[in-house]
Amino acid sequence: MSTGNESKLGVACIQMEPEVGAKARNVARTIALIEEADARGARLIVLPELCNSGYVFETREEAFALSETIGHGETIRAWAALAARLSVTLVAGYTERDGDVLYNSAAIIGPQGVLGNYRKLHLWGDENLFFEPGNLGVPVFHTPYGRIACAICYDIWFPEVFRLAAHGGADMLCVPTNWVPMPAQPAGLPVMANLLAMSGAHSNGLFVAAADRVGNERGQPFLGCSVIVDAHGWPVAGPASATDEEILVAQVNLADARRHRQLNAFNHVLRDRRPEVYRLAREG
Amino acid sequence: MSTGNESKLGVACIQMEPEVGAKARNVARTIALIEEADARGARLIVLPELCNSGYVFETREEAFALSETIGHGETIRAWAALAARLSVTLVAGYTERDGDVLYNSAAIIGPQGVLGNYRKLHLWGDENLFFEPGNLGVPVFHTPYGRIACAICYDIWFPEVFRLAAHGGADMLCVPTNWVPMPAQPAGLPVMANLLAMSGAHSNGLFVAAADRVGNERGQPFLGCSVIVDAHGWPVAGPASATDEEILVAQVNLADARRHRQLNAFNHVLRDRRPEVYRLAREG
Repeated sequence: MSTGNESKLGVACIQMEPEVGAKARNVARTIALIEEADARGARLIVLPELCNSGYVFETREEAFALSETIGHGETIRAWAALAARLSVTLVAGYTERDGDVLYNSAAIIGPQGVLGNYRKLHLWGDENLFFEPGNLGVPVFHTPYGRIACAICYDIWFPEVFRLAAHGGADMLCVPTNWVPMPAQPAGLPVMANLLAMSGAHSNGLFVAAADRVGNERGQPFLGCSVIVDAHGWPVAGPASATDEEILVAQVNLADARRHRQLNAFNHVLRDRRPEVYRLAREG
Repeated sequence: MSTGNESKLGVACIQMEPEVGAKARNVARTIALIEEADARGARLIVLPELCNSGYVFETREEAFALSETIGHGETIRAWAALAARLSVTLVAGYTERDGDVLYNSAAIIGPQGVLGNYRKLHLWGDENLFFEPGNLGVPVFHTPYGRIACAICYDIWFPEVFRLAAHGGADMLCVPTNWVPMPAQPAGLPVMANLLAMSGAHSNGLFVAAADRVGNERGQPFLGCSVIVDAHGWPVAGPASATDEEILVAQVNLADARRHRQLNAFNHVLRDRRPEVYRLAREG
């Protein structure tokens, strides 16, 4: 099966505990952890949602004061300098300002600079008070290792996001996240967020790399349980601790995404779709 | 929260081992197991895919000889008589013939007779040699207990099927199935088919009742692991044994499907969809 035409890649998910409002401290912490992930062989490194600002804002003013633009932001510049120095690609959540509009965004930054931007499509809870819903769709970014797309946290509750990524040609979905507990989580089963990552990976033949935060911010607990899932849908690193900072690293072959979509001689998870039937659904 | 306006319902999934070609024996076995499920308080009873005929056909002729019409089939008549006698609703897989065309179908039969028919939309493996893909969409059937829709086996690999059911108003997705092993299943995690059921239930606020077969037919092993999942996405009965016949029974309140879609003051799993964004996907 394996030929020379493969894309070996060290992927890392950095699980960390940002502190709301402490931007300089948070960015310094991301830099230390990215350096550690690099030392462990990672070339593509995913960080949590809003990891430079923290998550639980009390007011829009607080979020606004912590926000920055993709073009000139201080966090973005620090990450770009680091990506160039280490020759790594970063996918990291930050509080974005575009004019006076705020987005919950992820910057995709390679050794040559910013590759692109993703804006969270599905806002959770009080995010609706501070941010606007994303308006960039689910773009797919080309890297030397393969093609990646992004989703942030609650976005993976929507199977359409995996479909948009897969149909756009993505091999891996990178998920900066700040997962919160879901109702009625039983003991002995993975957290629902992990199940959604695994199911979405399997149903679309996509790798998923989800980097969560830990800790409790202004009464809001976060889940941890960062995970790297292969294109069959199974964890290859993690789930990480529910409480501690931790770096997950896995060596993956992104070409497997394209290979594993073919389940047998007849069945291919994407080509077996029945769009003529689905169109009957009321799309709103 | 709870008011008088609820829909309490005993749901059963019958996990059994049909024998290919032994139709009279299989139907007799379904009757004995349905009687047992009824005695345990079930009013809605789900049976496996192709449970009257068996699954692994060697030729289309073999499948054709075992097929029957929804209007006049001997299995359908036997199930309808039983549903009337016990006052239960059945969802059961059978090999359907319509003219000379074969479908992998599920009959929905209440105490007053046949409520409807569902034809598997996504054919797996050699089914492509014998059956035509379903042409009835994902209809929603009204029962005294709530609204149900059907999917068969590989159909739940397609998140669009859950969406069609939920958008059609279904409270529960009934899944007659003959699940087979998926690649690279690790120990210590539920089978992927169960994860797909749980994720689909959670993402759509739907109950899922999946009745699988067990055993090995002409070299093809089946998974068992039938499961009844609540509208949060968590098992309320099962997963059943991987190898043995077993009846799962759960008492559920189908009204919870409509209630649990609202996750908090801002978020509703169906209303939070962004159809204007999803339309950008190439739908084939």
